[in-house]
Amino acid sequence: MLAQIDGAAGQAVVDALADIAPDFATYLLEFPFGDIYARPGLDVRGREIATIAALAAMGTATPQLKVHIAAGLNVGLSRQEIVEILMQMAVYAGFPAALNGLFAAREVFRQQASA
Amino acid sequence: MLAQIDGAAGQAVVDALADIAPDFATYLLEFPFGDIYARPGLDVRGREIATIAALAAMGTATPQLKVHIAAGLNVGLSRQEIVEILMQMAVYAGFPAALNGLFAAREVFRQQASA
Amino acid sequence: MLAQIDGAAGQAVVDALADIAPDFATYLLEFPFGDIYARPGLDVRGREIATIAALAAMGTATPQLKVHIAAGLNVGLSRQEIVEILMQMAVYAGFPAALNGLFAAREVFRQQASA
Amino acid sequence: MLAQIDGAAGQAVVDALADIAPDFATYLLEFPFGDIYARPGLDVRGREIATIAALAAMGTATPQLKVHIAAGLNVGLSRQEIVEILMQMAVYAGFPAALNGLFAAREVFRQQASA
Amino acid sequence: MLAQIDGAAGQAVVDALADIAPDFATYLLEFPFGDIYARPGLDVRGREIATIAALAAMGTATPQLKVHIAAGLNVGLSRQEIVEILMQMAVYAGFPAALNGLFAAREVFRQQASA
Amino acid sequence: MLAQIDGAAGQAVVDALADIAPDFATYLLEFPFGDIYARPGLDVRGREIATIAALAAMGTATPQLKVHIAAGLNVGLSRQEIVEILMQMAVYAGFPAALNGLFAAREVFRQQASA
Repeated sequence: MLAQIDGAAGQAVVDALADIAPDFATYLLEFPFGDIYARPGLDVRGREIATIAALAAMGTATPQLKVHIAAGLNVGLSRQEIVEILMQMAVYAGFPAALNGLFAAREVFRQQASA
Repeated sequence: MLAQIDGAAGQAVVDALADIAPDFATYLLEFPFGDIYARPGLDVRGREIATIAALAAMGTATPQLKVHIAAGLNVGLSRQEIVEILMQMAVYAGFPAALNGLFAAREVFRQQASA
Repeated sequence: MLAQIDGAAGQAVVDALADIAPDFATYLLEFPFGDIYARPGLDVRGREIATIAALAAMGTATPQLKVHIAAGLNVGLSRQEIVEILMQMAVYAGFPAALNGLFAAREVFRQQASA
Repeated sequence: MLAQIDGAAGQAVVDALADIAPDFATYLLEFPFGDIYARPGLDVRGREIATIAALAAMGTATPQLKVHIAAGLNVGLSRQEIVEILMQMAVYAGFPAALNGLFAAREVFRQQASA
Repeated sequence: MLAQIDGAAGQAVVDALADIAPDFATYLLEFPFGDIYARPGLDVRGREIATIAALAAMGTATPQLKVHIAAGLNVGLSRQEIVEILMQMAVYAGFPAALNGLFAAREVFRQQASA
Repeated sequence: MLAQIDGAAGQAVVDALADIAPDFATYLLEFPFGDIYARPGLDVRGREIATIAALAAMGTATPQLKVHIAAGLNVGLSRQEIVEILMQMAVYAGFPAALNGLFAAREVFRQQASA
């Protein structure tokens, strides 16, 4: 589930935790990915819309927002849909939250274009 | 667009603004509803998933979260889908954000059941 | 300084702290009011604009926002100026923050009208 | 673990979730209480200091803050220690966060005194 | 209005949006600048005080805070007034929010001194 | 008190304020360190647990979080205790807050190992 959604970025997080909090990598695999994302009742496309919106609105988790913008593309969201989610955050969390989310998306889209 | 999504709750907000900031009601109709929700590129179901997630994650806008939980039902989200969005917020914004969102949903579901 | 800005509301906070954290009332009188508000370099009108904006944008301090909306009136801000500050927060913190700020202002304005 | 820390309040939350999101009660028992609080490496007293501080600083989770102020007393924190944690939040999250935390504590202390 | 307030920084944001969300640049020109800043009822000096305070208190929008510190200077706020606004945020949003705001201001002031 | 807790980092902050807001350095020495940390009623170990938890949960003050992770080590918290505090924040503020806190800790631990 982690690999399908997050691709290499998920593994990078697990690796980075190895020397400081390896148990936390286990929790990350078990609770968000084992428990939550695997649940029926909301498809993974809907789950990524929710996560991208939440992280952009919070504005405190840019690295994780980038991971989930890439994950959104992995599970079938179009670039345009991701841009629409981020633009909509101007209404609920203000223009700076939307702008910073759009600039994060631009960076992810560019990295993928050059990969 | 406001009526379709927010139903009576949207009109109530516009009315409440009448004696203090009537121009703000105009902006509310124009920018979020006229400009953003009317855009192609993301269907209204996806837009409500994003809004419910963002408001639950922020945790500072309970009245607006309730309006959008009702709006989510209006545009075709099931109760189970809304519950899944809110549970998922535990991962990104913590268990209290998810719990407070679930309690808001319980209140909206009950009001609709007794209507 | 506290009396001039906050009126009775400031004294009510000091009283409420008496049985749980009396020293905190002292800090409240010393640091925000003794140190910060008494400084030259920004007039008290500008200080209240800043505080109303910050508390409305944060969205986590409704009681204090109401105290400072009343304080803003005490130091010479007009109702219209306060409404403009709150509406502007839609741009920076989202429409729900602005709406909840406007509803707090409506409550303060009404209490003063009936006093 | 839940019973030891949260007492009746923990069970009340589990009950409230029963008709809307019973699985979430399971996650709540498993991840925070089964996984995190049960870990060695930080005693439960230190864990409650951390939780009270975090919830007061965030300012978006008053019901959960009250539960953890009571839980702090259950695991051996004194009222004075809890008041000190909350006062200290003025430094890191502002005076309103500290004030609102102190008022939540006053309510919990009073309920326990009258129980 | 954008040019008067934000100078070159506003145009840079519009340009950066061109290849990812050009419509968002239009919204940015229309709603914050066309609708809000152009309103009578609060002068532009008061509006910049409000915005600098809000962005510093939120702590999630450093690039936008820097743009508005420069905009504040453009509309006639003195450096000392801006420093006072930011110091005051220690009271409402904590010392870290004030410190990070002051360090953002120091950067803007230095860039202008060397321009 | 500042020197004992923050070591060189505290002096660096005071120095950085010298040319923009020297009075703010005075407030920083007086209120957090002179008034709050010096109070009896909670030991400095408990105070650092509270501060690390709050700053990690807020997610808006990475430089200050790093200073207090180092301060926690200075007053006797073990690396493992700090890691446990940060992991626990996943419950209250979400996994991204915990992850970003853990990565801040990893950086502080490495700097100290190479010092």
